[in-house]
Amino acid sequence: MAETPSPSPPHSTSSSSSSSHGRILQFAPFQSLVDDGFWRRLSSLKLDTLGVDQSPIPITGYYAPCSHPRVSNHMTLLAESFSVVPEAPRGNRNRCPVPGVLLNTNTLPSFRTLDRESLLQKEAKKILEDICSGKVEEDPGVLSSFLVISYADLKKWGFHYWFAFPALVLDPPASLLDLRPASEVLSAEEAASLSTACNKWRSSTLTADIPFFLVSISSNSQANVRPLKDWEVCQGDGQKILYGFYDPCHLPNNPGWPLRNFLAFIGLRWKVGRVQFFCYREKHGLADLGLSLIGEALVSPPEAWRDPQSVPKAVGWELKGGKLSSRFISLAESMDPERLAISAADLNLKLMRWRTLPSLSLDVLSSVRCLLLGVGTLGCEVARILMAWGVRKITLVDSGRVAMSNPVRQSLYTFEDCLNGGELKAIAAARNLKRIFPAVEVEGVVMAIPMPGHPVSANETASLLEDCKRLQALISSHDVVFLLTDTRESRWLPTLLCANENKIAITAALGFDSYLVMRHGAGPLISIPANADGSSGTSEDVNAFSAKINKLSTEDVDGDQRLGCYFCSDVVAPVDSISNRTLDQQCTVTRPGLAPIASALAVELLVGILHHPEGIYAPGESTSSILSSTEQPLGILPHQIRGFLPQCSQLTLIGQSSSSCTACCDIVVSEYRKRGTDFIIQAINHPTYLEDITGLTEQKKSASSFLVDWDNETDDDADF
Amino acid sequence: MAETPSPSPPHSTSSSSSSSHGRILQFAPFQSLVDDGFWRRLSSLKLDTLGVDQSPIPITGYYAPCSHPRVSNHMTLLAESFSVVPEAPRGNRNRCPVPGVLLNTNTLPSFRTLDRESLLQKEAKKILEDICSGKVEEDPGVLSSFLVISYADLKKWGFHYWFAFPALVLDPPASLLDLRPASEVLSAEEAASLSTACNKWRSSTLTADIPFFLVSISSNSQANVRPLKDWEVCQGDGQKILYGFYDPCHLPNNPGWPLRNFLAFIGLRWKVGRVQFFCYREKHGLADLGLSLIGEALVSPPEAWRDPQSVPKAVGWELKGGKLSSRFISLAESMDPERLAISAADLNLKLMRWRTLPSLSLDVLSSVRCLLLGVGTLGCEVARILMAWGVRKITLVDSGRVAMSNPVRQSLYTFEDCLNGGELKAIAAARNLKRIFPAVEVEGVVMAIPMPGHPVSANETASLLEDCKRLQALISSHDVVFLLTDTRESRWLPTLLCANENKIAITAALGFDSYLVMRHGAGPLISIPANADGSSGTSEDVNAFSAKINKLSTEDVDGDQRLGCYFCSDVVAPVDSISNRTLDQQCTVTRPGLAPIASALAVELLVGILHHPEGIYAPGESTSSILSSTEQPLGILPHQIRGFLPQCSQLTLIGQSSSSCTACCDIVVSEYRKRGTDFIIQAINHPTYLEDITGLTEQKKSASSFLVDWDNETDDDADF
Repeated sequence: MAETPSPSPPHSTSSSSSSSHGRILQFAPFQSLVDDGFWRRLSSLKLDTLGVDQSPIPITGYYAPCSHPRVSNHMTLLAESFSVVPEAPRGNRNRCPVPGVLLNTNTLPSFRTLDRESLLQKEAKKILEDICSGKVEEDPGVLSSFLVISYADLKKWGFHYWFAFPALVLDPPASLLDLRPASEVLSAEEAASLSTACNKWRSSTLTADIPFFLVSISSNSQANVRPLKDWEVCQGDGQKILYGFYDPCHLPNNPGWPLRNFLAFIGLRWKVGRVQFFCYREKHGLADLGLSLIGEALVSPPEAWRDPQSVPKAVGWELKGGKLSSRFISLAESMDPERLAISAADLNLKLMRWRTLPSLSLDVLSSVRCLLLGVGTLGCEVARILMAWGVRKITLVDSGRVAMSNPVRQSLYTFEDCLNGGELKAIAAARNLKRIFPAVEVEGVVMAIPMPGHPVSANETASLLEDCKRLQALISSHDVVFLLTDTRESRWLPTLLCANENKIAITAALGFDSYLVMRHGAGPLISIPANADGSSGTSEDVNAFSAKINKLSTEDVDGDQRLGCYFCSDVVAPVDSISNRTLDQQCTVTRPGLAPIASALAVELLVGILHHPEGIYAPGESTSSILSSTEQPLGILPHQIRGFLPQCSQLTLIGQSSSSCTACCDIVVSEYRKRGTDFIIQAINHPTYLEDITGLTEQKKSASSFLVDWDNETDDDADF
Repeated sequence: MAETPSPSPPHSTSSSSSSSHGRILQFAPFQSLVDDGFWRRLSSLKLDTLGVDQSPIPITGYYAPCSHPRVSNHMTLLAESFSVVPEAPRGNRNRCPVPGVLLNTNTLPSFRTLDRESLLQKEAKKILEDICSGKVEEDPGVLSSFLVISYADLKKWGFHYWFAFPALVLDPPASLLDLRPASEVLSAEEAASLSTACNKWRSSTLTADIPFFLVSISSNSQANVRPLKDWEVCQGDGQKILYGFYDPCHLPNNPGWPLRNFLAFIGLRWKVGRVQFFCYREKHGLADLGLSLIGEALVSPPEAWRDPQSVPKAVGWELKGGKLSSRFISLAESMDPERLAISAADLNLKLMRWRTLPSLSLDVLSSVRCLLLGVGTLGCEVARILMAWGVRKITLVDSGRVAMSNPVRQSLYTFEDCLNGGELKAIAAARNLKRIFPAVEVEGVVMAIPMPGHPVSANETASLLEDCKRLQALISSHDVVFLLTDTRESRWLPTLLCANENKIAITAALGFDSYLVMRHGAGPLISIPANADGSSGTSEDVNAFSAKINKLSTEDVDGDQRLGCYFCSDVVAPVDSISNRTLDQQCTVTRPGLAPIASALAVELLVGILHHPEGIYAPGESTSSILSSTEQPLGILPHQIRGFLPQCSQLTLIGQSSSSCTACCDIVVSEYRKRGTDFIIQAINHPTYLEDITGLTEQKKSASSFLVDWDNETDDDADF
C-alpha cells in the first residue's frame, strides 16, 4: 500500500512582492503516490541489472484530471513506470504519461547528502530548453517533468524517497485577474459545446492522455479542443483561445501545479502576456464545467530565460506534513513472509553479481537438481551451503535415524529429533531444511545404498534389486550426485551409475584430521545412456551430447585424459569395511572442523563446474595453473582437493581415470549396460568379481610374480 | 534396572552314566544380575581409559547366601565391581566378593565369534590350579571365579553380555547319598549350636564374606565354624566335619552351584571321598537350618587332574530361557534423554582419544569460557563447531535482529526467527543452541560494540560508557574471545581489552573469496591486570603468571617476539567503514563456502592453543615448521591462516606485534590502564587520536617527507 499524502496548502509562486495587477496566482502542489509495484520493480532492477550503477533512470509518472469534487489526483508511479514515455502504453485516459528521472543512490548517506538544489535546477533548465526548442508542442507532457531521488534498502525492503515537481519561478509572479468555475465564465451554449469537445478529446486514444491543449471558441459559441501545435492556426478569426490543461487539483480557488510551467511556456514561447487558462476537471468520467475553472492571469517571463545558457530559478521539492522532508515506506510488513524470505535469500547472491561475479548464473543454480547420498556430518552441511548458494532442488538419501550424538555435529538436527529412538534422518533433514528456507524443494528418501562386499541371501535379493532400481531412478532424475556416506563401499554403486549416465559426481570423504574432496571425471562411454524409462533424450540433446563426448572419447583412447573417479587409484575392489569396526571406526571420529571445510569445498567445487563452459568435461586445474584459468571468475577448477589439518595445508591434485577402475572403467560400465542389475548383484555377492573383470586380479598376480623376479635382479637398472 | 533372570532348572553335572551309588547330584546354576551402574562404569572405563584395548579386565562379583525360602540369590555385578578383590571393600555380609574376568570386545562380531569353549576351559584350569596350589584355602572365593564376555555399544547404550560360572566336571559325577534340611539331620542341640556359630561367623567383618568354611561338631554337640585352612586342625578328636558354603540357591532338593567346585576341591585337595556338605541359607539375616541343607555325596576326582598341565572338562555358560544364548540390555530407554545427549556428545570426543589423540583434554574444553562477538555467518558456525569440540560455556553477543536473508547462511536461525521483524540474534542463537544440545551453558547478550570512528554526542556518552563497561566485564569473565563481527572498527575495543587482560583472542574475517583466521599475541604488559572488580588473582596465580610474562617481557623488549594482533600490520587507526557502504558492502557478500571454512579453522586454532603447553604464548608455527612441532598431536599452531578460494590455496603467516599498533601496543594499553573509559571515549570520538599517541601520525609525516626526498635519490641504494 502506498501512503496517502496529506493535503498540502496552496503554494505561493515566490516570495517576491506582489505584482502590479490583481493578486498573486497560487497553485496547489502536485502530490505523489507510489504503488508497491514500483518499488518491487526497482528492487529487481537494482539487484539484477544495475548493481552499483547510480546513473539516473528514466521513468514515467502518470496523472489524470481531478475527478472528484473533494479529492485531488496524484502523480503516480507504478510498476509500469520503468517503461519510458515514447514506448510506454498510451491512450489510457486515466494515465497521462509524464517523463521523470529516478536517482537511486547506493547508500542512505549519499541519499541524504544529495545536492537537491542543483538537481532541481538541472531539471528546470531541461524544461526551459524544451519550452524554447518547441519540444513542448510535440510532447506537452514534458512540461510536468519530474524528479525522484531514492535509496532502496533492499535488505529490509525499506524505501526512502523524495519527489520534485520542478516549476519555473516567474519573476514577477503571475498575477490573477479572474478565477471562477468555467460554467460561470462561459455562456450556457459555450459551456455545452466545450463539454462535448472535451469529452471527445478525452475519448480518443490519440488525445485522451495529452494533458495540455488549446480551446478555441468561435463567435458562434462553438468550442474546439486542439493540440498545442495548432496554436498558429487558432489565431485570428475572432476566436477566443483558452489554454487548457488536465488539472489534478480539486480546490475551487486554485489551479493545480501543471499550470505553472504552462504559463511560463505560453508567455515565453508564444509571448502571450494575458492568458485565459482552463483548468479541466471531471466527474464520473465526463467534463464537469462546474468543477473546472477558467481564470485569467498576467504573465511576463524573465528576460534572462531567453539566454540558452540561463538556469531558471525553480521550486518543487514535495513537502511532507508541511515541511521539506523525504518520505519512507516499508514493504516488509505487507509482504508475504515466505516471499520475503525468497527475495532475501537471493539478495546476497544477486549482490555478488554487482561487482565481483557478474557472470554468476543464479538460474543455473536454482534449477540444478542435487542428490545427496548420506545426511550425516557432511550431508547436513552440504545441504546448507547449497541452499546458501541458491540451489533450490535437493533430495536427501539416508537410511539411518538421528542418534543422540548427531546434533552437535550434524547441523540439520536438534535434540528433539533424537527422542523416541530418533527420527529418520532423511525425513528430519528435509523438514528442517524447509524450516530454514520454506521455498526449498526438498525431498527425503529413506533407503540404504547397496554395497559390494555385503552379500545378500536369496530372499533378500528382491529388496536389493528394488534399492538398485530406486537409486538408478534417483540418479537419472538429478543433475548432480554428492557422495557423502562414510564407507568406501557405499560409494561404489553411485559412482558406477554416475559414470554410466555421465552425471556430475562429487565425493567428500573425511579421515581423522584430513579430507578429500573431488569431482569424478565424465563417464567413459560415448553412446547416449538410455533413460530410466527406456527413452533417450531429444535428438538435439543427443547431438550436443555426442559432439562433446566424441572429443572425450578420442582423448580417452590412451586412457589418461579422462579424470578419475574415487576408485580410480585403488587396486582393490570395495569390500565390507563396516561389520567389524570398533566404536571409534563406526563413529567416523574426525576433528569437528573437518566436515564444514570439506562440505564447503565440495559445494564450491560444484559451483565451479556449473559455471565452467566445459562443465563435467572441464580439465583438472591445480593451484599452479593460475595463468591458464584467469578467465574463470570463480577461480581454478581442481580435480581433487586434499587437506591436512595438522599442517594447515591444502593441495590440489589431478588423477587420471584408470582403465581397470572397479567403478568407472569401460569394462565395468559396459558390463553394467549389458547385464543391468544382474551385474550389480554379482558384484555385491562375489568379492573378487570386480577385480576379476577389470583385470586387477591378473595385475596383482603378475605384480607378485614380478616381485619374486625382482629379488634376482641386479642393481644395474637404476630406473627400476 | 537390571534384568531379572528367569529361574533355571537344576543342572546336571554331566551327561555320563549314573555313578554306582545313589542318584546323581544336581546343582542349581548360578544366576547373574548386573546393575546399571556396572554398565555405566564400564562405558566410562572404555571411553576414557581403555580405548581399543581388549585385554581382560579383572572384576569382582558379589553374592550372598539365599535369604528367602522362595528366591535364590544372584551373582551380582555393581559399579564397585571394577575394584578388584584384594582391594575391594570387605566385610559386607551381603556382598561376598568373587573374582571374575570381563572380556569386553570392540565389536559385536568379535563378541559373537569368541571361542567360548576355550575361554571356559582356561578359567576352569585356573580354578584347578588354585585348588592344587592351596590358594583356595587362603582365598576360598576363587572357587567361584567367573567370566563375563561383553560388547558395549556405547553409541546406543546397549550391552550384549554372557556369564560363565566355570564348574569342573567330575567324571564320574558326584552321587548323592542323602540330602535333607539341616534341622532334620542334626540334633536340636547341634542345630542350635551350629546356628549360633554361623551367626557369629556371619557377624564378624573378618569372616562374614567368606563363602566357604568348615563346620566341626564335637561329640558334645558343640559346633564351630572355621576357615578352610584349619582343615588339618579339625581332623581327629571324633569331630564331625561339615563342608559348608554360602548357598545362593533356595531349592529344597538341590544345592547351589558353588558346591560343584567345592566338592572337586575337597576330593582333590583333601582326598575326601565321602563328603558331608552344608548348604548354608538364611532368613531375616540369621542362619535358618530349616532352609539350609545337609547332604552327603561320594566324590572321586579324575586322576588326570593331578597332572599340572591338565585341562579339566568344564561347564558353566549361563542359559537364557533354557538355551545357550547371550543377553542384551539397553539402558537408553531408562536414561534421561538429556543425560543421554550429554554422553552421546562426549562420545565422539572420547573416541578421539582411543587411537589418535590420547592427550586431548576434554576437561579443558568443557570448562573453557568462550565469548563470541557477533552471531552472524561466522558466529553461528563457530558456536556450532565449539559445541562439537565439547565446549560447553558459550556467550553470544550481538545487537542485531534476524533478517530474512540470514537463515540460509547463518546456521543457528530458521525462517521462524525472522518473522515479526526478526528476533534478537543473541537471544535466538542462544535458544537454538540449547535446542541442539540442552546441556550447553549459553547466554545471549544484546549489545553493540563501541567503535572508533563512530563519534557519539554528549547525551549518548553515558550509554556508550555502559557498553564499554559491559564489554570489559564480559571479556574479564571469559577465557577466550572470538572476534566475528563484520567491520574492522568493531574489533578494536575487544582487541585492546584482550591485550590488556591477556585473554586469548581469535579473529576470523571474510573477504569476497578469501579469509583470514588468526590468534592475537599475548598482551604487552607484564603487570597483572586488575580484575574487573578491582581484585587481582591469588599470589600463586600471580607468581606463575609473572614467571611466564617475565620471559615474554624480555623477549618483547626489541619488539619483535610477541605475535601481532589484527591491527598490528595496519598503519591507520580504525575508522567508520559502515555508514557509507553500498548494499553489497553492507551485506558482507561472500562466497557461501568461506564462512564454514574460516569458522572451522578458528575453532581448530583455539583447540590447538588450549592444548599447547605455552598456551597464549606459543610461538607462531608455519606449515614448513613441521619438524619442530611433531610433539603436538593436533599439528602446528599457526599465527595467521589466510585462504584464497579461487586458488584453492591456504597459507600460514607469522606477523610480529607492532610497537605502534593502535590496539595492542604498550602505549595504547598503558594509556587505557591509566585513563580507562576516558581513553576509549577519546579514541572513539577523535579520529586521529590513536594515530597520534602511537606515533603513526608522525610516521606518516616522515614517510611522506621521505617519499619526497626519495624522488631525488639515485638508484644506487639497491636495497631500498
